Amino acid sequence: MTDKMNHRWRLAARPVGMIKESDFKWTEEPIPELGDGQVLVRNLYISLDPTNRGWVNDIDTYLPPVAIGEVMRSIGIGEVVESRNRGFEEGDIVQSMFGWQEYAVSAGEGLNKLPMIPGLPLTAFFGLFGHIGATAYYGLLDVAKPKAGETLVVSTAAGAVGSLVGQIGKIHGLRVVGLTGSDEKCRWITEELGYDAAINYKTEDVTESLKKHCPAGIDIYFENVGGAILDAVLSLINIRARIVLCGLISQYNSSEPVPGPYNFVQILVKRARVEGFIVLDYVDRFQEAFQEMGRWYSEGKLKYRVDVVEGLDQAPRAVNKLFDGSNTGKLILKV
Amino acid sequence: MTDKMNHRWRLAARPVGMIKESDFKWTEEPIPELGDGQVLVRNLYISLDPTNRGWVNDIDTYLPPVAIGEVMRSIGIGEVVESRNRGFEEGDIVQSMFGWQEYAVSAGEGLNKLPMIPGLPLTAFFGLFGHIGATAYYGLLDVAKPKAGETLVVSTAAGAVGSLVGQIGKIHGLRVVGLTGSDEKCRWITEELGYDAAINYKTEDVTESLKKHCPAGIDIYFENVGGAILDAVLSLINIRARIVLCGLISQYNSSEPVPGPYNFVQILVKRARVEGFIVLDYVDRFQEAFQEMGRWYSEGKLKYRVDVVEGLDQAPRAVNKLFDGSNTGKLILKV
Repeated sequence: MTDKMNHRWRLAARPVGMIKESDFKWTEEPIPELGDGQVLVRNLYISLDPTNRGWVNDIDTYLPPVAIGEVMRSIGIGEVVESRNRGFEEGDIVQSMFGWQEYAVSAGEGLNKLPMIPGLPLTAFFGLFGHIGATAYYGLLDVAKPKAGETLVVSTAAGAVGSLVGQIGKIHGLRVVGLTGSDEKCRWITEELGYDAAINYKTEDVTESLKKHCPAGIDIYFENVGGAILDAVLSLINIRARIVLCGLISQYNSSEPVPGPYNFVQILVKRARVEGFIVLDYVDRFQEAFQEMGRWYSEGKLKYRVDVVEGLDQAPRAVNKLFDGSNTGKLILKV
Repeated sequence: MTDKMNHRWRLAARPVGMIKESDFKWTEEPIPELGDGQVLVRNLYISLDPTNRGWVNDIDTYLPPVAIGEVMRSIGIGEVVESRNRGFEEGDIVQSMFGWQEYAVSAGEGLNKLPMIPGLPLTAFFGLFGHIGATAYYGLLDVAKPKAGETLVVSTAAGAVGSLVGQIGKIHGLRVVGLTGSDEKCRWITEELGYDAAINYKTEDVTESLKKHCPAGIDIYFENVGGAILDAVLSLINIRARIVLCGLISQYNSSEPVPGPYNFVQILVKRARVEGFIVLDYVDRFQEAFQEMGRWYSEGKLKYRVDVVEGLDQAPRAVNKLFDGSNTGKLILKV
């Protein structure tokens, strides 16, 4: 047991709209004595993901909501600093749902030891070799089942998942068009990541630009956004189009009911398939994805960017970068 | 060549909301001399289907819109009265897109000869052995892929397609709950067709009734309606639910943009699949469906009702029965 205190962010109120710092309470609490089988982990990195916003609404999603008073939930990477569990020893690097806090006590269940690979930063286990990489890989390849020559449109194309989806699409011979929120990001995804075209949805007429860049229509849409962009895409889908519903960040902050797409009838007339996708369903198959993505990475075919914010105290402010579009690549908090 | 004149309904205006008789023009026109390879068909029965409403909007759906001035499109069953095509002879009973008219001239392409089966009324070729039967069969079995024990909800459950979907669901061991618009229809689908429960959506709280009748949640929804009923269903779907999008009749008459379901996000969090379905894609496989449904029919496992309106002059009025809910079973116009 360490003498250090544990700083934690506990949920204080249900956020309305964007997350505010006052929705959380910053606490300093003693670290309890470990029981048999328990492990104390010092949190090193916290993954900030759009889905975090959904977890703090008072609605069951694919996980129960974070309760008022609970430590905010998040995926983390940490180091074992004390162990009363035979499966773990001091110095082990582990990944689990550690939450927004400096230290976490774990019973070992769901605590994954990470391999130490020379030259590979730990943050890669939030990305290519973590839930983000698996989301991009299985969302595109398993749900959409792309065929070479098809046209793929990706929303939040410069984001953690989107930037990988587009590159995996190119590896599979697709025409790939990305939507993102700044000219700088447009340049990054076309010049660095190899997207065929990029659309700045903040300054361009999305429907017109999609028409221009998808002359053969849209076969696959990797959806992270919802709202007007989804409607624009639906107006241009081909017969048997597939829409991978991976996220709907345009509505996570809404406190009013949000209508579904006005072009919903297009799903019917185009015999399209809209399928919801949560990467947790693929945990058993993660290694398969990591192996293939690792090969592409070592061959220089996959590029990856992280956006690291420092300081646990920054968590409530930092998570909003996902919603105002100010992050590029995977958003990570360094504790 | 007959000396008779041909009465026809030509599209005169794009309907706004429900179809009005004034949207069509009743004409009397001579029947042209047949050319080589042509066949003259006397129209006996016209199939009235919800999708007809979509065909008269100025929007490409899965078929181009009926042009102003064109004879209204419809599926028909007729008798060959004159033939200059070796493939057909006088007296043959044939099915094709004959339209809202007494006589149709066909070049033989897409003209299907119907078998004469003792005891089987011709109208069955619009139903069990026609596009309606194939819609119910492939929509449920091929798109939704039901497993015994699952819960199926059917909208327009006393309609032509819905009444078959529910019965095929029972044959496959599903719990089947139907939504329809009158207590009489509720009785018919539970007492005659074997639905486990029926909900009168006009008088009941749909969400509460669905909760009551689907205690294990909803695995499959056969969607013909859209709107508030779809939202109620989405609020109760299970993980990996399948929604067969076969029709959206609640919005076919709308002249304003119609929002998609407010519970769209449920598709994501429940990893559900929404898939559009148009039976024309299955034409090559119709015989397989007819064979199996014929067996069920002869075993008394499938019941089927037709609602016949007499007189070609009634067509514009009759088609609205599909939208005000006043038909039970397959709506047919006897010419």
